Amino acid sequence: MKNQIQKIAVLTSGGDSPGMNAAIRAVVRACCFYKVECIGVFRGFQGLVEGDFEPLGARDVNYIINRGGTFLKSARSDAFRTVEGRQSAYRNLVDADIDALIIIGGDGSFKGGMTFNQEFNFPVITIPGTIDNDINGTTHTIGFDTALNTVMEAVDKIRDTASSHKRLFFVEVMGRDAGHIALNSGIGCGAEEIIIPEENLGMERLVETLKKSKASGKSSSIVIVAEGEKLGKNVFELADYVEKNLPEYDVRVSVLGHMQRGGAPSCFDRVLASRFGVKAVESLLEGKSNFMVGLINDQVVLTPLDKAVKGNSGIDWDLLRISDMISI
Amino acid sequence: MKNQIQKIAVLTSGGDSPGMNAAIRAVVRACCFYKVECIGVFRGFQGLVEGDFEPLGARDVNYIINRGGTFLKSARSDAFRTVEGRQSAYRNLVDADIDALIIIGGDGSFKGGMTFNQEFNFPVITIPGTIDNDINGTTHTIGFDTALNTVMEAVDKIRDTASSHKRLFFVEVMGRDAGHIALNSGIGCGAEEIIIPEENLGMERLVETLKKSKASGKSSSIVIVAEGEKLGKNVFELADYVEKNLPEYDVRVSVLGHMQRGGAPSCFDRVLASRFGVKAVESLLEGKSNFMVGLINDQVVLTPLDKAVKGNSGIDWDLLRISDMISI
Amino acid sequence: MKNQIQKIAVLTSGGDSPGMNAAIRAVVRACCFYKVECIGVFRGFQGLVEGDFEPLGARDVNYIINRGGTFLKSARSDAFRTVEGRQSAYRNLVDADIDALIIIGGDGSFKGGMTFNQEFNFPVITIPGTIDNDINGTTHTIGFDTALNTVMEAVDKIRDTASSHKRLFFVEVMGRDAGHIALNSGIGCGAEEIIIPEENLGMERLVETLKKSKASGKSSSIVIVAEGEKLGKNVFELADYVEKNLPEYDVRVSVLGHMQRGGAPSCFDRVLASRFGVKAVESLLEGKSNFMVGLINDQVVLTPLDKAVKGNSGIDWDLLRISDMISI
Amino acid sequence: MKNQIQKIAVLTSGGDSPGMNAAIRAVVRACCFYKVECIGVFRGFQGLVEGDFEPLGARDVNYIINRGGTFLKSARSDAFRTVEGRQSAYRNLVDADIDALIIIGGDGSFKGGMTFNQEFNFPVITIPGTIDNDINGTTHTIGFDTALNTVMEAVDKIRDTASSHKRLFFVEVMGRDAGHIALNSGIGCGAEEIIIPEENLGMERLVETLKKSKASGKSSSIVIVAEGEKLGKNVFELADYVEKNLPEYDVRVSVLGHMQRGGAPSCFDRVLASRFGVKAVESLLEGKSNFMVGLINDQVVLTPLDKAVKGNSGIDWDLLRISDMISI
Repeated sequence: MKNQIQKIAVLTSGGDSPGMNAAIRAVVRACCFYKVECIGVFRGFQGLVEGDFEPLGARDVNYIINRGGTFLKSARSDAFRTVEGRQSAYRNLVDADIDALIIIGGDGSFKGGMTFNQEFNFPVITIPGTIDNDINGTTHTIGFDTALNTVMEAVDKIRDTASSHKRLFFVEVMGRDAGHIALNSGIGCGAEEIIIPEENLGMERLVETLKKSKASGKSSSIVIVAEGEKLGKNVFELADYVEKNLPEYDVRVSVLGHMQRGGAPSCFDRVLASRFGVKAVESLLEGKSNFMVGLINDQVVLTPLDKAVKGNSGIDWDLLRISDMISI
Repeated sequence: MKNQIQKIAVLTSGGDSPGMNAAIRAVVRACCFYKVECIGVFRGFQGLVEGDFEPLGARDVNYIINRGGTFLKSARSDAFRTVEGRQSAYRNLVDADIDALIIIGGDGSFKGGMTFNQEFNFPVITIPGTIDNDINGTTHTIGFDTALNTVMEAVDKIRDTASSHKRLFFVEVMGRDAGHIALNSGIGCGAEEIIIPEENLGMERLVETLKKSKASGKSSSIVIVAEGEKLGKNVFELADYVEKNLPEYDVRVSVLGHMQRGGAPSCFDRVLASRFGVKAVESLLEGKSNFMVGLINDQVVLTPLDKAVKGNSGIDWDLLRISDMISI
Repeated sequence: MKNQIQKIAVLTSGGDSPGMNAAIRAVVRACCFYKVECIGVFRGFQGLVEGDFEPLGARDVNYIINRGGTFLKSARSDAFRTVEGRQSAYRNLVDADIDALIIIGGDGSFKGGMTFNQEFNFPVITIPGTIDNDINGTTHTIGFDTALNTVMEAVDKIRDTASSHKRLFFVEVMGRDAGHIALNSGIGCGAEEIIIPEENLGMERLVETLKKSKASGKSSSIVIVAEGEKLGKNVFELADYVEKNLPEYDVRVSVLGHMQRGGAPSCFDRVLASRFGVKAVESLLEGKSNFMVGLINDQVVLTPLDKAVKGNSGIDWDLLRISDMISI
Repeated sequence: MKNQIQKIAVLTSGGDSPGMNAAIRAVVRACCFYKVECIGVFRGFQGLVEGDFEPLGARDVNYIINRGGTFLKSARSDAFRTVEGRQSAYRNLVDADIDALIIIGGDGSFKGGMTFNQEFNFPVITIPGTIDNDINGTTHTIGFDTALNTVMEAVDKIRDTASSHKRLFFVEVMGRDAGHIALNSGIGCGAEEIIIPEENLGMERLVETLKKSKASGKSSSIVIVAEGEKLGKNVFELADYVEKNLPEYDVRVSVLGHMQRGGAPSCFDRVLASRFGVKAVESLLEGKSNFMVGLINDQVVLTPLDKAVKGNSGIDWDLLRISDMISI
């Protein structure tokens, strides 16, 4: 490691999330502020392996704060999973006089960054960018807030038609391993039931809730289901089961899908991404490495990378309790 | 038929669409203006059969112009398909001193209305409310414009993530028998290909287009598919076929589903619904019956109901040509 | 004029409107389709005078269909109002081997184009792009539909707070010389009164309407006012007058301003812009000149430029009648 | 005070904010859950004075979680500022067997609640509902997050037109005494400068920033100004000053106004309101009084009411530093 950081590379990796562009912009502009060069790496780790670099100046990130996706692109990289691939990446960085690397992405990308740091003692700081919010060391990942609003607005629309026809909708949202999106959007759209990986309700409980909901005079019902097999069933099987056991319900399924990953970022995510981007640059300049930038108690703080990748942040069980209470 | 219309009933039937509430509001307020009573019928034809009526005054339709769905609800009615059911409906109308009926809905609802009119010589005017835009005698149905924006905004979000990952998305939109939604939203979101029921491209053409799109340097592609089996394949089978034949593509599928039916209506739909609602009332007051209100050449006009229900309006083939030209 | 058009320039001029980028994209892509070169002129007529040109290929207009504003920029040009300026513009076009010019803008820009065509016999086709919808020869200008939705969504928000506090809001919208925005958005948001330049209601009528509205039990009122001095008063003076004469009202003013010009274009505007752009190119290739592309009876047609610039399209008086009827 | 709370009244007071309805819904549903009666008080303190009460059951708050404003209405109450008024309020509560009061509103409303509690020893819990976020004891007030998105989306639109014309816009946002909205939305929309009541930049600094911005090649600039007289000037005077001193800028002003208070609440605000509403009911049932519910370190906690009303929460100065750094 050189004494001083004079050139910083930034890449986005893994599933994209709204606000990644805002984070890149903050990294680039913070580099300008501190008179450090900034290099954009295209297509994540694959771009490292291939040396797909481009210098980024303050004007190159004009008008991207409001764009979904990532203009640096993201991609899977099988090459980076090999020693040879990572050696190629390291040579490319060294050849380009790059002193440090900022990785914007999720859990898997952080592990890649950690391995790279260990093998080559190359300074790495990571920024949590994923809609799933399933990262230790931060209460909010970039894109989570936007995804919640996207889901909620879609379900508000579904509620219109559900209530016009007195129907029951099963709506599948993202979050295979973490129920954050389902739980928060479920409360936000007043879902009658929320099914998340962290909790095994059992099918009887679901049927009971829906029976009660019908009895209470509700003219429509929404069940939010985090993707993946829940209770041993996917969302279509869940719907089938309920339709058979509660024939009074007219059941429909909607899988929201990839639109949850896109869209203009919310103000929350833009501000968060801006704070994270600046902090990442400043941490590198202070000689820090192998940390993730995160938000804890509304403060931007660092968490050692090995802690950040250890399982996800855990849901707020009190939210589940509140949802049960007020979705009657 | 009495000499004068003094009480008008209004119902919504079939799939709901954004703007139905705005149409109901216009009917109610126009009745107030002409000092005619207005009766809301709940749950479509089923509410006619059961006599589920409620008087509606000007204040009962406050703050509904901006709401998706229909506050009068909609429902299937097996009873109304029987002679006994329709007789019950007629008796309920007569018992309530109702002189005429306004039906807001689609093709199927219009046929029900036509039958009812023929059997009992009961004055009926219909208003086209469906997102599919598949009605003869009007260039725009209520809800179509809103649905286009809903689809387009969802696909704009999908484009963000598609372009970040250089992916190909097959997006299924509504319109089983009519390609209006697919065609217009497809142009609106710059889809590389649009697959509609009115045209049999053949799989080779699809594969050709996608090859050309890749060759031209596009970093992502969107194919909009109207729901239903197209080219002998559903959207998932289409995607599979392409993935096998174009392994260079990373393919994903998104089925937009019922969110397309909901949401706050666009200004276009609110204005259209307002014009249609007023015209329906005025037509009844002029002694007209058995007509559909529609928009032709930007004018609100009447079309005989039997013409309106005869097949759908046909797509604008020039749009398809334009789409092919500019989606390169 | 050469026998054949081989190079077409395109510029945007006057106030920008949502959908201009979609129109540019369609022009560029249609040129590609017909194997004609396309040149972008930056900053409107000023760019013509200065020769601020850049070739545009299919990939240069990626991802702009959904962007508000115009990436070619717009600007006032005093130089182009002079003979010398226009001569310079002509020389620049000739020097760059450009054979024809497409102008996207409003009334004022069309007059500039017409003068230029007359002076140099240079082929010109124009495309109506303005939120005001005040152009003869087209029922819809590019951006009008988007602006209606922008205004309506803003007023929907204002209605929330108006109704919570039982207030009366005067909301000023754009359209100094034409009431199209005020009239359509006014119906769309259920405004109690709409004040447009085409109609002189007189202050008494306004006061009467508001008295009636109060008496009818309404908990809030919205008056939409087209910008400019109406009834001899600006929107603040109107509000003052009403507050003095109807002390029972708690009056507020909101001037929506320039946000009305921006935003992602609606699907309607994107499709319209796409159709107009293609038609403009095809018209030039067919040897047409001095026409405006427009929409009449849902068909894209040409109108001689001198007719297009002769006063604006006139409001639909029936809309005003309907608004009065259903805003009770 | 009775031993047990069996009937709880809820009211909204002061300026409305998006999410108030969600908070009312949570209060009502939590009351149902704990088998406690819930009474809605209309028009804030004025409704207390007049006894404008209505029982609220679970179904009465259907479909309001997504609505801006407050269906219980809000109003100024001069009567409640008098001892007689408050005595009348107390009698009405006692006559209706109401045991406790939940007040949703801002600083001023909390002071009213505190006085009432002191005079009559009547149990009061308050919930912070204001877009201004200017309350001690909570990092977020209900409506703040929604208002940020509303402002940001409006400014994104203004940016479209600003950048098309290379203009400088002064945009006035709400927050007379607190710069939270200006600061966060300013970062979110990439504003070149943010002017807030907490900081006196001086006019020279503003002019310097704008000069630098121009020099750096920016094609448009946005200055966000918190309402009220800043630097001794209102937003129009600021704009005039800059136009005179920086004639190279084409300056415009936009005052966003009351639309900032309305609109469907964001997911963040709906979840926050739900948590606050439940906590308020549970606190009363635990015998607590004279507290405000708030969010600190992502936990819902209580703050003594006299602390909550003591000045506002203070801005995060680090945000200002970040804004300066990345808005270059």
